[in-house]
Amino acid sequence: MQFIGITHNGEPWAAALVDSRVFPLAPVSDFWSDPSGWQDKAESLAPDASASKGSLSGASDAGSWLERTSITEVPLVPASARVICVGLNYKAHAAEGSYKDQELPPYPTLFGRWTASLSVGNVPVPVPAGEAGLDWEGEVAAYIGQRVESADEATAAEAVFGYSTFNDITSRTAQKLTSQWTLGKNGDFSGPLGPLVSRDEVGDLRDGLQVRTRVNGVEAQNGNTRDMIFSVPEIIALISQTFTLHPGDVIATGTPEGVGYARTPQWLLQPGDTVEVDIDRLGTLVTPVGDVSLRSRA
Amino acid sequence: MQFIGITHNGEPWAAALVDSRVFPLAPVSDFWSDPSGWQDKAESLAPDASASKGSLSGASDAGSWLERTSITEVPLVPASARVICVGLNYKAHAAEGSYKDQELPPYPTLFGRWTASLSVGNVPVPVPAGEAGLDWEGEVAAYIGQRVESADEATAAEAVFGYSTFNDITSRTAQKLTSQWTLGKNGDFSGPLGPLVSRDEVGDLRDGLQVRTRVNGVEAQNGNTRDMIFSVPEIIALISQTFTLHPGDVIATGTPEGVGYARTPQWLLQPGDTVEVDIDRLGTLVTPVGDVSLRSRA
Repeated sequence: MQFIGITHNGEPWAAALVDSRVFPLAPVSDFWSDPSGWQDKAESLAPDASASKGSLSGASDAGSWLERTSITEVPLVPASARVICVGLNYKAHAAEGSYKDQELPPYPTLFGRWTASLSVGNVPVPVPAGEAGLDWEGEVAAYIGQRVESADEATAAEAVFGYSTFNDITSRTAQKLTSQWTLGKNGDFSGPLGPLVSRDEVGDLRDGLQVRTRVNGVEAQNGNTRDMIFSVPEIIALISQTFTLHPGDVIATGTPEGVGYARTPQWLLQPGDTVEVDIDRLGTLVTPVGDVSLRSRA
Repeated sequence: MQFIGITHNGEPWAAALVDSRVFPLAPVSDFWSDPSGWQDKAESLAPDASASKGSLSGASDAGSWLERTSITEVPLVPASARVICVGLNYKAHAAEGSYKDQELPPYPTLFGRWTASLSVGNVPVPVPAGEAGLDWEGEVAAYIGQRVESADEATAAEAVFGYSTFNDITSRTAQKLTSQWTLGKNGDFSGPLGPLVSRDEVGDLRDGLQVRTRVNGVEAQNGNTRDMIFSVPEIIALISQTFTLHPGDVIATGTPEGVGYARTPQWLLQPGDTVEVDIDRLGTLVTPVGDVSLRSRA
C-alpha cells in the first residue's frame, strides 16, 4: 500500500495512493496514532480505486477518490517528527568525501533535519545565495510506525512502518563551515520525500534495492541498499537507547557514492537542473532546482 | 512581559505570566503568528493580575487568571520549531572540552534539537541506560518573533522576540559516539526551558547577564553573556543565509565554562540530583534528575 500527505480541508491529511488516484484517510496526526490500522482500512478500499466513490469502514465519513494531479502534496510526517539522518553509511561514499582519511566510525553518524526543511516531489528547491550549487544525496527513508524505547534489533525491525525515496539535498558550503553539519542539511525545501510504501511491499533492505540518482538524465549515483554499513534495525535500536522514537519519525538511511562535491571538478546542481532519485519498489522522486528567489515561499 | 506554555482545553496554549498567576492567551500556533500583538494584549491586562477575572481586548473570549500551581506547563514553541544550538560560544568553554586543542572556529558551531526533546522547569530528566550520568549546560535561549530570510545583523536583532533560561542537558556518551553531536543532545525531557521574557525587559545580551548553574546548591558554572563569541544577531544572520527562520524558532546561545565531563574527576548528574540554571532577568530553572524509568513517559 502506498500513502502520501495532502492538503485536505485546509490541513495536512494522510491519503492512500493507488496508481494516479488518492483517497483522503485522516489528519496526519490521527494517521500516525495507528498507521497499521489505517493501512488495513486503506487496503479494504483499494479495489474500489477505479470507481469514483470509496467507503472507508471505521471512518466517520466516506470519502472520494481524487486525481493526484488535483491535490497539493505535503510531507506525510507530523510537525513534531524527527528526521534522523545517517551520514557515511556506504563504504564507497565514506571513502569519497571529507572523511576519506579517517577510519569508518563504529557507530552510525547521526545528524538531524527539522520537518520545516521537508518537501515532496516536483517542488523546486532554491540554491541559497552563499552556495556554488546544491549537492544530491539519493537515499531510502524509513518511517517509524510505533513507539520505540531501548529496543533490540528484532523489536526495532518490527517498528518500521514503511519506506520512501528521499533526496538529502545539501548546501555543502554551509555544511562544512564547522564540525557540525546541521546548517547545510536544512535548507528551505531541501528534503523532498516520495510516497510512503508499506513495509510488506518493500521487504528487507538487506535484500537489496538499487538506488540511482540522475541529474538532467545523466546517472550520478548507482548503489544498492545491501551495501549499507548499518542496517535500519541497528540504527533504530541505537537511537532508542538515548531517546524514544515515535510514530512518524523518519530515519534517512544514508546515500551511496557519487555525490557531486567530492568530484574533480565538482558537479553541483544549478537552477534549471532536474535531479531524480529512482529506487527499486519505491519509485522515482523528481526535484527541479531553482534560484534563491524561491526562498520567499519558505 | 513574561509568557509560558500551558495545557489549556487539552491543547498547548500561550499564557501571560505575572508573579504566580497565568492568563491563557491563545493556542501556541496563534500566539506565534503575532507574538508582538499578543504581548500588547497581555500588557493591557497585566494590571488586572490581582483580580480574579481579566478581559482581553481583541480576543474572542475573556479568560480568567489561574494560579500557576494549578496548570500544566509545556514548552512555548510550535511543534515544527527548530531549536538551533550553538556549541563552543564561550572561549573558556571551548578551551575545556574535546575541542580544546583546535582553533576556535570562525563560524558558530550549530547543531539541532527537535522540539520532542524539550521540557519545562521542575520536570525530572531521566539518565539513559548507557550514560554514566548527564551533563549540564546552562544557557540563554533566544526566541525568533518574525520571519528571517537572508538578514543583516540589524534586521536579525529586531527579529528576537524574547529570551528564556535553558539547560542543554547532554548525554555525553551518545554525543561523542561519532563526529556529530545530535544523538546526545536529544535525550527524552533533556531540554528544559524557563518562562519567555520579552526582549524589552532583557536588553542586549552584550550588556551582560550572569549565567550560573548549581548542582544540589553547589555552583558549577558562573559565566556572563558578554563573553559570548558570536552574538545572537550574528548567529541569526548566518543561519538565515541558508534557511528561513520562523516565529517560535529558538536559538540556544551556548554554555559558558564549567560543564561536568571535562573535569578531573568527571562530575555528572545522577538520579536524585537537582540542577538549577539561574540567569539575570530570566529567573531560575530547576530540573530534578531521575532514573531511566522516567523514559516511559516520553
